Formats: sequence, C-alpha cells, structure tokens
Amino acid sequence: MAIIAQSRRMRRTPFSDGVEAAGVKGYTVYNHMLLPTVFDSVVADYHHLKSAVQVWDVACERQVELRGPDAARLMQMLTPRDLRGMLPGQCYYVPIVDETGGMLNDPVALKLSEDRWWISIADSDLLLWVKGLAYGYRLDVLVDEPDISPLAVQGPQADELMARVFGDAVRNIRFFRFGWFDFQGVSMAVARSGYSKQGGFEIYVDGTANGMPLWHALFEAGKDLDVRAGCPNLIERIEGGLLSYGNDMTRENTPHEAGLGRFCSTQTAIGCVGRDALLRVAKDGPTQQIRAISIAGDIPPCDRTWPLLANGKKVGQITSAAKSPDYGTNVAIGMVKMTHWDDATVLDVETPDGLRSATVNEKFWI
Amino acid sequence: MAIIAQSRRMRRTPFSDGVEAAGVKGYTVYNHMLLPTVFDSVVADYHHLKSAVQVWDVACERQVELRGPDAARLMQMLTPRDLRGMLPGQCYYVPIVDETGGMLNDPVALKLSEDRWWISIADSDLLLWVKGLAYGYRLDVLVDEPDISPLAVQGPQADELMARVFGDAVRNIRFFRFGWFDFQGVSMAVARSGYSKQGGFEIYVDGTANGMPLWHALFEAGKDLDVRAGCPNLIERIEGGLLSYGNDMTRENTPHEAGLGRFCSTQTAIGCVGRDALLRVAKDGPTQQIRAISIAGDIPPCDRTWPLLANGKKVGQITSAAKSPDYGTNVAIGMVKMTHWDDATVLDVETPDGLRSATVNEKFWI
Repeated sequence: MAIIAQSRRMRRTPFSDGVEAAGVKGYTVYNHMLLPTVFDSVVADYHHLKSAVQVWDVACERQVELRGPDAARLMQMLTPRDLRGMLPGQCYYVPIVDETGGMLNDPVALKLSEDRWWISIADSDLLLWVKGLAYGYRLDVLVDEPDISPLAVQGPQADELMARVFGDAVRNIRFFRFGWFDFQGVSMAVARSGYSKQGGFEIYVDGTANGMPLWHALFEAGKDLDVRAGCPNLIERIEGGLLSYGNDMTRENTPHEAGLGRFCSTQTAIGCVGRDALLRVAKDGPTQQIRAISIAGDIPPCDRTWPLLANGKKVGQITSAAKSPDYGTNVAIGMVKMTHWDDATVLDVETPDGLRSATVNEKFWI
Repeated sequence: MAIIAQSRRMRRTPFSDGVEAAGVKGYTVYNHMLLPTVFDSVVADYHHLKSAVQVWDVACERQVELRGPDAARLMQMLTPRDLRGMLPGQCYYVPIVDETGGMLNDPVALKLSEDRWWISIADSDLLLWVKGLAYGYRLDVLVDEPDISPLAVQGPQADELMARVFGDAVRNIRFFRFGWFDFQGVSMAVARSGYSKQGGFEIYVDGTANGMPLWHALFEAGKDLDVRAGCPNLIERIEGGLLSYGNDMTRENTPHEAGLGRFCSTQTAIGCVGRDALLRVAKDGPTQQIRAISIAGDIPPCDRTWPLLANGKKVGQITSAAKSPDYGTNVAIGMVKMTHWDDATVLDVETPDGLRSATVNEKFWI
C-alpha cells in the first residue's frame, strides 16, 4: 500500500491537526484537499458511526459563493432543478450539468438570501465552470471560494452533542434546512445534513482560525457520548445509496442515469444549461441507470470499474463496492443497462480477482 | 504516514500496472489521477534521474482538446501569451488567468493545426473553465478530454532510449517542438519537453490500450541503459526552478508574481481574458515574486506554507522545499515581497520544527 505524498497542493484543513492527533490512517484527496478515509478500521469506524457520534473533517466540501444581483439567475443556469420555490435557510441537492446534460458535480446549494448562495461542492473544480459562465454571460455577480470549512457531526447521538455546544435550538433544525448559530462570538450556518444515513449536522465553520477551537469544544462536550473522529464511511454510504461523484457517476452520465431525474424539473427550470439535452433525455428515458447490487464471495478493494456481464456480454459496471457486516453481503453501486436493470437480475461481475455473482436490487439497503 | 485510499475517483492510468510492478511507494493525486512520487527513495530516484534514464507515468497531465473553427480564437482568449507566431508542431508554456489576472493553470499548449489544439494541464479542472467560456461566448468549438496520456522519458540517456524505440529521427526534435511518430501502427505526438532539467521527451500516448505495450517496449529496449520507472522529482524540480501550480502559485497570484511575466504579451494578446488586470500589473510591476531560497539546517517535509520573516514581520512564504544532495543546502521556492527579494537577503523561515535561516537567491541552482 502506497503512502500519500503531502504537499501544499494537497491542502490541509482547519481541522488537520485534530485529525492527525486522532490517529488518521488513510487519506483521499478531494477538491485538492485532504479527506480522511479511516481512523480505527473501516469496519470499526462503521459500527461506531451507527451507534454513537462522530466528528468529520469535510472541509474538502469547498464552497463556491455567488454574490450579487445576478446570483439567483446564475444559480438557476447551473442546475435543472427548479429553484423558484426555494427559501433562504433551505438546502437543495442540485445536479449540475454541462450543455450536453453531462454531470459536472452534484453539490448541495444553500440559499443565504436572494443575492447570496453557497454551493457545497463534490470533487470537481466547479468554481471554474461557474466563473466561466459568469464571465461569458457578463453577469453582475462575484464568484469565489470563501474561507468556509464544513465540519460534520454524524451518528445517533449527533443531536445530543450539538445541543451541548450550540444549544437546544439545533434540535429544531429540519432536514436540509439550516440556521445561524453562535460559536464563541462567530455566527455559523448549521444544517441538518451530511453524507451518512445516521442523522446529523454540518457546521459551515467560518474562518480557519475557528476550526480547532470548535473541534476541541465538540470533543470536550462529547466525552461521555464516546465521540470520535470519523469520516465518510465507504460501507455505510453504499448501504444508504449515497452517490460519490467521480466514482458512481462522471461527466459521461446524465442525472437521469444517476437516478437523479426527480431533481430535474427541466420543463420549468428556465435558463438552465443543458436544458435541450435533458428534455430529450426526460422524454426518452435513460438507457442505463444506477442500481444497488449485491456481490457474492470475497472481493478486493474497488479501485477501478468492474464490468458487469450477462452471458459474457458487458451490460454495465460496478463503481463502488465493500463488504457489509450488517447485511452479510458485499454492497455495491453500479450502472446497468435497461435490458438487465430489473430487480433480482443475476449477473457476473469481473473483479481483478475473478468472476463473482452479482444481483441487481430495486432498493439500497436502508 | 497515512496511506492513500484508492477508488475509481482517483483514476488509474494506462501505465498503472507497470508503475505498481516497479514498486511505487508513494502517490499524489493530480487532476483526479494517480501520480507516483517515489520508487526507491526520493534521493535515490534523484541521483538515477541525473545519471541514466527514467520512464515517468505523467498521464495525469490530462489534455483539454479544442477543435473547430473557433479553436484558435478560444486558445488566445485563455492566455496572455501572444500566440500569433505559433506554428503547428510547437509547444508553448502558457499561463492561464481569470478576469482578475489570477492564475488558473500553467499548462503547455500544443498546436496540432489551426483548428486543433491540446492543452496539457497542471492540477486544476481547466476543462470546466474552457467549456464555460466556449458556452458563454457561443463559440464554434468542441472542448473535451481525449484518451491521450503523456508518458515522459527523462534523463541524460533519454535520446538513446527513444531512438531505439521510435527511430533516430526523434533525436532531431528541437526543444518544445513535437513530431508524429509511429508505435505499433499508431501515430503519436512526441515532444522534446518534460518536468525535469535533465532533458528528454514526452510521448502523448494515444489510446489507453497502447499504454502498457509502449511501457514494456521502453523497458525492454533500455535494459543496458539502466532504465527505471521514475516520476517528477521534488529535489530536482526545485533545483531547476520548475514551478508547481497549487504549490508555488495559486489563483491568488498573477503570472508576474510567479516570475512568468516574460510569457505575457498582454499588449498584443488581443482578446485574452484578464487583459485589463494584467496591463495594470505589467505597468506597476508585482509587489511580490517567486524566488529561489536556500534554507540552513534540518527541515521537515514542506506540506504547508512556511512564513518568511524579517525582524519578526512576515515578508513572504516558502511553498516547496527539500534537501539537495548536490548543492549541500535545502533548496526551496518562495514568494517574497519586493522589500526583501534582492539577492543574498537573509531572512528567517518559520518551519513546524522551528526557525531556520533562509537566503534569497537571484537564480535557481541549474
């Protein structure tokens, strides 16, 4: 197993000192920034996430800020999701596509006010796309990456821990809503959201200097809750069907292929880039789509696509996979052609260690 | 030292199988792709690079291809370098800036023909910027990432090795020129270029399937030349003053700050984005600039910026540093304010291990 070579280019986060003190064992790189992948072991982290509470350094969810009179117009250009009903204080999951309907990112947008938005991005330099559009259309908007670093608190004890640090009012935040909460005199957006199905919050930490004080405050307040440093967990996120841009879908795929057609109101999202292509896709339907897939037997780590075969012919590919302790199978995410995407279809998957049996599932595990 | 977590998102390259068989020990991530950083040790790799020949997997230098009637117009929009005199078969190092003159990338552009260009990019999703501009300006051009993966052959024996595989005509390729050469029936662009000062070539390998056959052919042909798998070497590239986007300069910096003012013909590069800002910068001159810096004593790996101090006041920062066996000092790259950028200025540098003495140098080491 190769080590990760660190450099300024792999940006540290406001919480890196805490992550290292907690004994991080693995990293990935996400938006040119370090993202922890394992602390104890992926399996031990998984059990703990489901039973207690974890603090996650997800500063790599960088923000693209839109500010100015044309901010709302630009935001609607970026996504086929209809934003007309969105209110300040709401978070929307917004597929972002290019002119052909190919996905460029799948971020969460936060509407701070009519003329100020944050886009909390997945792993691509969406800033450059947004700046290019704003420049090309001569929009009256500032586009930049502010000094905002999300810190997630996830797990069944998340409400209790957050209430101890931010007050009981955090318990009232509804799913995919955010409010403004004070930490040591700094007002920060706190949303009920996060990249797990265990419940919890994301704190949009304002100012690098406030990162470690908040980190310490959370660990201090949560000692009796067995709070630990954690990170997005490969097994848990596959069980829950949480997609990973760059893994499960890329610029090659439309939102409809990624199973995100329900977020595309292409008829009414007037002005969005890629509208023509997506109207066609919505009419015809996708010819392949993401599915939950179980795989039998032992499998290696999934570091590349694995072909899905029916009678030796390729009908799709696996893009993420891991052994699930709770479900007694290998849980996986794959893209499958419509000819073979029905529930309970049995296929072969070609792993680097040989062929395994795979079964298409209608639903994810939770 | 943390391991790197592999996933499809950290894309493997056409040469990854060869890199692994050669015993790669460290990786970084560059354009969402694996880039080796060490094979034997950074010091052993360094000595070998300077004395023999290495084959480098630099597939992470992804290509942005511009194709169509507006390709040349778009290319000139992207850079303040005047491209009017550029001929097919030439490579140009082209700073790319946003509307404020902030650097977005520092790639090498290859002109294939008037209506077809490749931009061999440093570590940012330049594709999104280029696509955004092309869309906003409604240009008649296709912008995409083709299946082209650079493989570098670097070191004093590079000419000999390349001649054995591609024929003696490769010896005649001039610096920053490229020609078309056949490998097993596939025509590939071969340029005299690369991210070292030891001389050599970059082969723009056309087609993933052709990667390992070429890799094997080079190693087979170079046995008696002690050819080894290598990678951009941290020490050697600092000695040679080869900048690294994301390390030594970012979107915060202008080309002039990065010492790249000589590549900006802003007066004549009509139509380039950022022209107004850069005309101002060219008139006033930058207030800080990149310098070669020697640092005394022992230093840790440079994984973040280190402040440069004069009488306790910050006057710049170190962005890359490594101990040089050949020059008997720590070689470094830093950004220094004009008040302290003169040759032989002595400063303090604040490393995580404590203060060290630093000296500003007029020139890099080779």
